[in-house]
Formats: sequence, structure tokens, C-alpha cells
Amino acid sequence: MQRMSPVPPPPSRRPGRPPRPDNAAMRGQLLDLATDLFAARGVAATTIAHIAQRAGVTPAMVHYYFKSRDQLIDAVVMERIVPVIGFVWAPVPLAQDVPQAPIPDPAAGARAFIAEIVGRLVQCAAERPWLPALWLHEVVNEGGQLRERVLRHLPSDRLQAFAGLIADSQRQGAITPGVEPRLVFLSILGLTLLPLATSALWRRVWQADPQAQSIDTQAIAAHAIAMLTGGLFSPSAPPPAPPGR
Amino acid sequence: MQRMSPVPPPPSRRPGRPPRPDNAAMRGQLLDLATDLFAARGVAATTIAHIAQRAGVTPAMVHYYFKSRDQLIDAVVMERIVPVIGFVWAPVPLAQDVPQAPIPDPAAGARAFIAEIVGRLVQCAAERPWLPALWLHEVVNEGGQLRERVLRHLPSDRLQAFAGLIADSQRQGAITPGVEPRLVFLSILGLTLLPLATSALWRRVWQADPQAQSIDTQAIAAHAIAMLTGGLFSPSAPPPAPPGR
Repeated sequence: MQRMSPVPPPPSRRPGRPPRPDNAAMRGQLLDLATDLFAARGVAATTIAHIAQRAGVTPAMVHYYFKSRDQLIDAVVMERIVPVIGFVWAPVPLAQDVPQAPIPDPAAGARAFIAEIVGRLVQCAAERPWLPALWLHEVVNEGGQLRERVLRHLPSDRLQAFAGLIADSQRQGAITPGVEPRLVFLSILGLTLLPLATSALWRRVWQADPQAQSIDTQAIAAHAIAMLTGGLFSPSAPPPAPPGR
Repeated sequence: MQRMSPVPPPPSRRPGRPPRPDNAAMRGQLLDLATDLFAARGVAATTIAHIAQRAGVTPAMVHYYFKSRDQLIDAVVMERIVPVIGFVWAPVPLAQDVPQAPIPDPAAGARAFIAEIVGRLVQCAAERPWLPALWLHEVVNEGGQLRERVLRHLPSDRLQAFAGLIADSQRQGAITPGVEPRLVFLSILGLTLLPLATSALWRRVWQADPQAQSIDTQAIAAHAIAMLTGGLFSPSAPPPAPPGR
């Protein structure tokens, strides 16, 4: 997948090293550790003391940077999660994505847009292994500790525009009948973040199958894009004739 | 969706009425209440006392039927969840599903099979409103209290046969390249149980849109089947020509 310029590179971090005497770096390092622990153990089970211990600093040091646990949680949302939302929903330069389209194709725009959104999501997840677990356990999950704080930052105008693009394409006959435009983005999450967040689970179910163990982030991305843009069934295989024809 | 004979009808229950003096009915009623509470509040937060209170009986009465909280949880798994797994994975009578297929079509079998599995899943979820939440919070979720007990009952032979059917069809060119056969069942769950389990969440995101509020279980089923069997894009819309043609 092509690396895109608007995504900030994940901050470098070497857990074994003592923190550098640099305020911004130290703060960023603590935020990264907090984010990792939130994803691995859950927000509710992670205390300032855990983060301090993992960072090899005193709890007072963590408090110095974040004042309170609540402020730390806010910082994780604002500085780690909200940038991901901003990146995924940044405007998609449609024209340059389909320069070779020989004829105007009502589906081409939607197709390119969806492939782009899926690519961005998977890129974010690949660069931030904490993302799928945090999404599933702390946002989607009833009682998730980050749900309210994250929902506030969902760009509802862009979600609506996205559903509107799908609905328009559907009216033009380019989107499969029966597809509900408002559920498409959730379907994308269900085909990307869900398998990433549950990989420990399905690897156990498929434990006797070495090929299943080797399904990686790229294979999940390819699967999601294939399912979304092609469906399960190759267009070369004719669909069964409708009854009564 | 056609109602199928092997699914047991959900037991009738009138929460407002005092329990009938019938052991089996009383036990079933307590199990139903426990299952509903497990789905609504989570297993960890639901005590025998809550169930007794909701049923209008003493905790001793709940203990009489289930001995311990652990035994009650086992009963919910064995008598409420395992039958759903058994129903979803019961053999699919392929031949009678495609009587009108005019020519042998390698995709028709897989297509009918998948539509049948999706239909069964959605039927189960429609008849058992607790199912999607229990799946998400107590099985998929890290630390879910039912995960180990449910995993034991997944029919791995059938899951493997299902993935094998997809892989065979893919080798014959009938399944979209890039689709990972072992991820197809999880994709089905992501397109059915995930939107059902998160409906409170996405209804909030779409709160200004009355049409979004009216998306019901049948619309979710239709969306899932459309996405799975057709993909997003109608086959009538030609895909963009590959670059360089």
C-alpha cells in the first residue's frame, strides 16, 4: 500500500531506554505507553502507576505531564485517536485516483473512494497495532471508556457525504440493490478492524491450520477490498438465473 | 425470510406474570431472564440476586434450579447459545435451494450456501435479541466471560469445510481473487451481528436522519446478503478498465 503524506509517522519509541531529558519526547513516550496499555489491558484496568512502572519513571512524573488520569485519557483520544479519524476522513483526491478511466463510470468514483478509505484504515492499523483493540473494546463495546470522547470527534458531515455518494451511485444503478448506504462504513470496519482486533481469537479457532496463522494485515486488507469492491463472487461467474425466467 | 423447521421457537415469557408452578417452565424462564441480563448488563455485572429480583422470586429459588452462578452460566451456554451454533451450522440442503439453476454454475452452490448461513444467523438474531450483544461483549471481547465456554462448541470441522468450499470455488474462478476463505465466516459475522450489536451506537451517529432510525433487522440482513453475494458494485456497472489497456 502506498504511504501517504498526510499521515504522521508513528513516534519512535524504545521501551528499554530510559526517557530522554526532553519534555516533548517524554510526554509522547508516556502517551504511547498509555495507549498500548489501554489497548492491551483495557482503559479501566490501567492506572497511572502501571504506566509509570512500564516507563521506568515515578507516578509523580506521569502526573507532572498529565495532571490526572482523566487528562491522560483525553490526551490519548485527542493526540492518538483523533488524528487517525482525521486522516481516514481527509478529502480523497478522486480525480487523480482514476486517471485511466476511459469512459465516465458512475461506480468508478465510489469504488476509488472506498478503496482509498479502506487503504487508509488498514495503513493506520498496520502502523498502530493498538488501534483495532482500542476500537473494539473501548469504543464499540457497551461501557467502553473512550466511546463518548471518541464519538464527539466523528465527522458526521463526512459520514453523511459518504453515505450520500453511495446512495447517488445506487440510484444510478452502480451500487448493488439491497446495500444500505448508511451501513457501508460500518461494514468496512467489520471487514478490517474486526478481523484485526480478533486475530488472537480466530487464530485459536484455526490453530491446526498453518496457512491461517500466516494471514497478516496485508492479507486482511486485500480480503476487505476484494469483498467490498467485488463481493465474494467473481463477475465472470454468471449469477443464477432468477426463478421464472 | 422463510422460517425453518430445525430452529426451536423462542420460549414464550411474560415478565410481568408470577412464575407458573411448573418446574421446567420456571427453569426456562429463569434461564431466559439470565440470558437477557447477561446481554444487557454483561455477565460479570449480573448476580443471582439480580435474576431473582427480575423474576420476582427469592435467590434461593434461583439456586434451587442452578446450584451456583457457574452452573447457571453453563446452562445459558449449553441451552441458549449452543443450540444457535447447531442451527446455524446444521447441514445445508443445497440441491433444493437452487432448483431453477439452468446450467451448472460453480458459484451457485457456494452462493446458496452463504445466503442460507446468513439467513439462519439473522433469523436467530431476530428471534433472540440478546444474541448480537452477547456475541460481541462476552465472546468476541477480550476478557469476555463466555468466550472459553463458547469456543469449545464451535464446529471446527464445519468451519473448515466451509472455508474449503470457498477455496475450491475460488480455484474454479467463481470467488473473487483476494478473498481469504478462512476470513469469510468472520466477514459474515461482521456484516450481520456487528451492526445488530452496535445499533444503539450507529443510531446515535445518525440521530438526525430518520431513515437511519428505521433500519431494522431485515434491512441489515438484506444489506449483508447484498454485500456478500454482490459486493458493493452492481455487475451491470462495468469495472474501470485496468491501467495500460
